[in-house]
Amino acid sequence: MRNYNVAIIGTGAVGNTILKVLEERNFPVNHLKLLATKRSAGKEKIFRGEKIIIEETHPSSFNGVDIALFAGGKASTEFAHEAVKRGAVVIDNSSAFRLDPDVPLVVPEVNPDAVEKHKGIIANPNCSTIQMLVALKPIHDAAVIKRVVVSTYQAVSGAGSEAVEELTSQTEAILQGKDFTKNVFPHQIAFNVLPHIDIFLENGYSKEEMKMVNETRKILGDDTIKVTATAVRVPVFIGHAEAINIETEKRITADEARTILSQAPGIIVEDDLSSNLYPLPIRCADRDEVFVGRIREDNTIDNGLNMWVVADNLRKGAATNAVQIAELLIEKKLI
Amino acid sequence: MRNYNVAIIGTGAVGNTILKVLEERNFPVNHLKLLATKRSAGKEKIFRGEKIIIEETHPSSFNGVDIALFAGGKASTEFAHEAVKRGAVVIDNSSAFRLDPDVPLVVPEVNPDAVEKHKGIIANPNCSTIQMLVALKPIHDAAVIKRVVVSTYQAVSGAGSEAVEELTSQTEAILQGKDFTKNVFPHQIAFNVLPHIDIFLENGYSKEEMKMVNETRKILGDDTIKVTATAVRVPVFIGHAEAINIETEKRITADEARTILSQAPGIIVEDDLSSNLYPLPIRCADRDEVFVGRIREDNTIDNGLNMWVVADNLRKGAATNAVQIAELLIEKKLI
Repeated sequence: MRNYNVAIIGTGAVGNTILKVLEERNFPVNHLKLLATKRSAGKEKIFRGEKIIIEETHPSSFNGVDIALFAGGKASTEFAHEAVKRGAVVIDNSSAFRLDPDVPLVVPEVNPDAVEKHKGIIANPNCSTIQMLVALKPIHDAAVIKRVVVSTYQAVSGAGSEAVEELTSQTEAILQGKDFTKNVFPHQIAFNVLPHIDIFLENGYSKEEMKMVNETRKILGDDTIKVTATAVRVPVFIGHAEAINIETEKRITADEARTILSQAPGIIVEDDLSSNLYPLPIRCADRDEVFVGRIREDNTIDNGLNMWVVADNLRKGAATNAVQIAELLIEKKLI
Repeated sequence: MRNYNVAIIGTGAVGNTILKVLEERNFPVNHLKLLATKRSAGKEKIFRGEKIIIEETHPSSFNGVDIALFAGGKASTEFAHEAVKRGAVVIDNSSAFRLDPDVPLVVPEVNPDAVEKHKGIIANPNCSTIQMLVALKPIHDAAVIKRVVVSTYQAVSGAGSEAVEELTSQTEAILQGKDFTKNVFPHQIAFNVLPHIDIFLENGYSKEEMKMVNETRKILGDDTIKVTATAVRVPVFIGHAEAINIETEKRITADEARTILSQAPGIIVEDDLSSNLYPLPIRCADRDEVFVGRIREDNTIDNGLNMWVVADNLRKGAATNAVQIAELLIEKKLI
């Protein structure tokens, strides 16, 4: 089997997790490059026991790179096309190209075949969308989902390593009765919840909420599916949770949904109320699967279901999904 | 104006807040009695600058009491009827009598006239239901609400003073890398969210979720209104938040809803996205009003609205609502 020259662009929370996931999944890496801004250049990371020195990203950094995993942020708009020009396939975790009709938006469990049409860039969806769709696709296949009402409980690590630091330092300060600063979040995040993720748009929704609407349609290839979302940041380090209410065309019972989801790829059903078993952020951390529980019929409509979906936002919501896309490219001999 | 002999039964988080609210609102108290279990008897509290010694509750404790404010828990089933027998009007914060057809279930901003039919006991609704209905009633009056999908973000103080202590001690332990215990909650609550409040029922919903369904119908006097809920505990000390999606019979725009809510009693609209203004648990703490924001149209259905509703669960969700019911009794000359 061939090994590939891989570059990770970005060395924050997501970039670090990509590094870990490549190692854990024994991804066929020939040479690994770590690229970042000037600020991080010169620092070291360990991959498979070997030191790798982070380099500042330049267009020429992509010479000889087969797979460029962009961890998100501004680097994507600046360098993704440069990487493609130099022969790399880009898997991009930013939102820059997700709705571009020339760019496949892929969740391997949901729409693996979409990768086949790539023209150099493949986009990794938003973290909240990925875990929602892994859970909803098997039900959509069985009963056709018409409408989704989702409320999220999103971990601070989705806003990067500095956000993790801000939750830690604010929490410490509050417990000690000291003053604290706010840099990443517009309001105190410790012991608080903020209905505000990404910027607000003209229509009153946040960009995060609209990502869940628009990316869902593109990934499912269905412009009629209706999604309305409220995205909320909670003082959790890792693991996004979602309270999801769906309306389906055909009737599906909670038991049927549980059976279908138990057999679906990438899902672990945790749903035993008698033993207080349901998905929890603290338990999904460092796991690659999407956890589903609290599955119950919603009798306020003819065909309704409620469920609770949790996943590690840095893994399945970002790094793992990106690496799985790379694995898919290899499997489908597209690289 | 007459002054009343008042008893507060329970001296935990809610009982303490009732004491504070009676003082702040200058409630016409003649004599105040603090009643609790044996464990708390003998301790002291301050009311209007005077020491009051907590007494153990006995049936005879209610002799001469005009208004008995039960803070919740087992005392209600044990002593509420005894208090009524001895001539007191009981305002009960437990769930014991809420669905009893002989007991009015009252939110003063929503169904004040219901108190008129009381037979000695008036029930204070569940905290999550109270704040939801204060926000929804003006919209129900204007456009007739058909269906509600609600996800909650509930503070630990709703589970009592020991829960507040548990969040504090777990948080400290985790930041210091130490072991910690779980007593109040079935799983770690620090830096985590739990889709589990009160016990689980046969139908897969928690009792908390079904309270929001059944109490809403009783308070609005409308058995056709449909509510489906997911109740989630979050690591916040004070202030429940709710992501509420509604479907109305008549069309109502976000602007119209904002205007109606701004003029409604007990509500403060905080909804200016350009200045990151939306309701926050940390800002509603120690306030008696219900805060509403993130009001936006949901175009996935014909007449849909999303909103974000926050209130101090110990105040409007419990103590303030109970004291307002007592004020209503006086105002309506029912006592």
